[in-house]
Amino acid sequence: MNDQATMPNWIHGTLMHAPRLETVEVVENALIEVGGDGEIRSVMAPASPDYDARLRQAAASGAFVNLSNDQYLLPGFVDLHIHAPQWPQMGKALDLPLHEWLLEYTFPLEASYRDVAFAERAYRTLVEALLANGTTTAVYFATVHLEASLLLAQICLEKGQRGLVGKVVMDDPEQCPDYYRDASTDDALRDTERFVEAVRALPGNTAATVRPVVTPRFIPSCTDAALEGLGAIAHDNDCHIQTHVSESDWEHGFVIERTGRTDTDALDRFGLLTRHSVLAHSNFITDTDMGTIARAGAGIAHCPLSNIYFANAAFPLRAALDKGLHVGLGTDISGGASPSVLDTCRHAIASSRALEDGTDPAAPADTRGRPGSRVGFNTAFWLATAGGGEALDLKVGKFEPGYRFDAIMIEANRPDSNLVTWADTDTGDDVLQKIVNNAVRQDIRKVWVEGRLVVDKDAS
Amino acid sequence: MNDQATMPNWIHGTLMHAPRLETVEVVENALIEVGGDGEIRSVMAPASPDYDARLRQAAASGAFVNLSNDQYLLPGFVDLHIHAPQWPQMGKALDLPLHEWLLEYTFPLEASYRDVAFAERAYRTLVEALLANGTTTAVYFATVHLEASLLLAQICLEKGQRGLVGKVVMDDPEQCPDYYRDASTDDALRDTERFVEAVRALPGNTAATVRPVVTPRFIPSCTDAALEGLGAIAHDNDCHIQTHVSESDWEHGFVIERTGRTDTDALDRFGLLTRHSVLAHSNFITDTDMGTIARAGAGIAHCPLSNIYFANAAFPLRAALDKGLHVGLGTDISGGASPSVLDTCRHAIASSRALEDGTDPAAPADTRGRPGSRVGFNTAFWLATAGGGEALDLKVGKFEPGYRFDAIMIEANRPDSNLVTWADTDTGDDVLQKIVNNAVRQDIRKVWVEGRLVVDKDAS
Repeated sequence: MNDQATMPNWIHGTLMHAPRLETVEVVENALIEVGGDGEIRSVMAPASPDYDARLRQAAASGAFVNLSNDQYLLPGFVDLHIHAPQWPQMGKALDLPLHEWLLEYTFPLEASYRDVAFAERAYRTLVEALLANGTTTAVYFATVHLEASLLLAQICLEKGQRGLVGKVVMDDPEQCPDYYRDASTDDALRDTERFVEAVRALPGNTAATVRPVVTPRFIPSCTDAALEGLGAIAHDNDCHIQTHVSESDWEHGFVIERTGRTDTDALDRFGLLTRHSVLAHSNFITDTDMGTIARAGAGIAHCPLSNIYFANAAFPLRAALDKGLHVGLGTDISGGASPSVLDTCRHAIASSRALEDGTDPAAPADTRGRPGSRVGFNTAFWLATAGGGEALDLKVGKFEPGYRFDAIMIEANRPDSNLVTWADTDTGDDVLQKIVNNAVRQDIRKVWVEGRLVVDKDAS
Repeated sequence: MNDQATMPNWIHGTLMHAPRLETVEVVENALIEVGGDGEIRSVMAPASPDYDARLRQAAASGAFVNLSNDQYLLPGFVDLHIHAPQWPQMGKALDLPLHEWLLEYTFPLEASYRDVAFAERAYRTLVEALLANGTTTAVYFATVHLEASLLLAQICLEKGQRGLVGKVVMDDPEQCPDYYRDASTDDALRDTERFVEAVRALPGNTAATVRPVVTPRFIPSCTDAALEGLGAIAHDNDCHIQTHVSESDWEHGFVIERTGRTDTDALDRFGLLTRHSVLAHSNFITDTDMGTIARAGAGIAHCPLSNIYFANAAFPLRAALDKGLHVGLGTDISGGASPSVLDTCRHAIASSRALEDGTDPAAPADTRGRPGSRVGFNTAFWLATAGGGEALDLKVGKFEPGYRFDAIMIEANRPDSNLVTWADTDTGDDVLQKIVNNAVRQDIRKVWVEGRLVVDKDAS
């Protein structure tokens, strides 16, 4: 690798991205120039006037990556919702009702992160796994523990992942188990402030690739005082915010009963609904809520995988997009059983179809579903990349000058892979659709974040 | 490898199977003896009286496979519904309505199998891919072409896959394109009879690992005369039968309009509903249809992946199982976008949840879905293995004496894999659930069919 600080990098080959909703672009023989600071300087197609000269310059530079015909450059994936401590139980215990899942598995597991050695082992393997799955930007719930949460931020920085990390606040003794909650509201707020400062002060975090997130778990687990205090901290420190919103019938109803308002409305009054808020799930948000969220410019983390298990309904994705809301995807590990944003794309498509057509064959076709709800692979891909970047107000997710170079290289037609293309009949769009439908972790061979190569599976 | 004809094989390690619906068994240090004819002779747990002596005998035999702690032996997967010729377009064109998908992509592609060289290339890579995904038994629709369909059967035999293969019949000029249909009803029937004879006579097919299947595409594409004739051929030759049943609103309604009966009822009258029939989809079958299917003992190929795109509703899986119907899974390549029966398990779980809870958050919770519809990972795994075997009336899908040894070895915790277990907290059932949720083709390392090792990815 070249000296990143001084020399630009060049990448040449087929790029695929979705610069705008519903619009995918496949550019063969594209030439991308990345500055030493990780910013994309230029993206040229062969028709560009300077192309030939630039390509010669690139090839001679010694910092030139030339992709083969089976290799494709895509923006790295943005995962807007991950419960980092739940990584060890990903893929199990999913047949349980939410209450048992939380009390018998999830809370005891999260509580074990008071042990920093345990946290180190889990978080290190998680960040490595997500990068290997192509997740270049990850938005994490950690646990209530200050030390372990800070460790997760450090590991993101060390491994080179763009990480938005939150120390979780859950301070209401009536709703949280004794063995796993903030000691008091004051402790919750003080630890959150310390966490914000400490993440920003991490040695090497000069480009803010790792950021703190103010993180009330959700309204039911927090006191009003904590929610108010967190709103003030987010405002004073200009922080991202994340929480769960209107996820299930129970959660949606609980908040209305307690506060007399929907989640969205209550968060807004607590100062927790901003351009930098990420609202996980949001399945039951009302039309009024959508308007409130649109005005705030907040983002939604659509989590179709875990919605299958815990949400009681599909997120009205198409309606949210039509209203101009910022939406991206979340794996929701471990309520979701996969760490792959590609899997999440597939389930987002399936979820939208199930909402459009409905599911009960005994119901008449004209009342079974909600017409016009479907999204296609292009929208799913946009959500996974540019949509996620837009939701976070970060310049990631597409190949344009001024954007950060967060990217993955996918190789088709490798031995023992289901990503098979037919050169004589597949167009570039077909290949992209096959990637969305069939690529897995093992097909992702290189990963760059902030211009830096952080995964190279074929390095000797 | 030892001489299969004379020497039994022994496999020692952790086995996982679902011998009965809702019942998964995980047996550590199991010892399985496989006869030279591919039949399981014995399955012993350490508590068995002869275990120690047999294990010594096995270890000394020179035909002993000893699995490591991260390796798991599972029954091979049974895929009840695959359109083999659609393999080159798997994962693309799925945003189209069914009519365009058929006329612009699928029928032109299938028509190209008149070229046997094209068929050879496609079918060879397909059978290799399915075996590499752990599919030991595959039920295939081929095309209308006798020669190419026979080639598919030959390739299954050559590669060692248990294959049930059908030359497709679609003879109605009003419903099928000129460039892709049987030349006449008589041709369709004569070619089907020739196909049945030729498959059974294939050199080396002595154990009938490859079998012919009488295959009307579906009622809409066949004349009554063809359907009657195919019923007679199936009866006279004691053949398996496959077709599509009540897949979508359109298809279900079309058959009722043409015949005055449901698909199920019409097939029954044509002699096409038997213990050896495989009915793809069956989403809209009525309670009466379920009773008819149960009495016939026919099997259903549940295809949750393609149902997302083309079915307009979820298959009422739980209801079918509660009525004692034989049900297994189908990938439905390429209406389904994945060749993996594990992916199909995941979508079967998701589909059942979407039916149970419903999908529209605007509907009241108590009218949104169909309560009691969910299935868990154990049922999905049963469908993928023993359920599929039972649907076909073949002795495959579980580890019991008298069953054929069709098996796969899955290895967890490999480099660059999402199948991660935690030895200190995961039970055997947890590991199986993680396999169902997260294993992919690359985690499957060995595949046996009829006792023969047909895939060994770690062979030097």
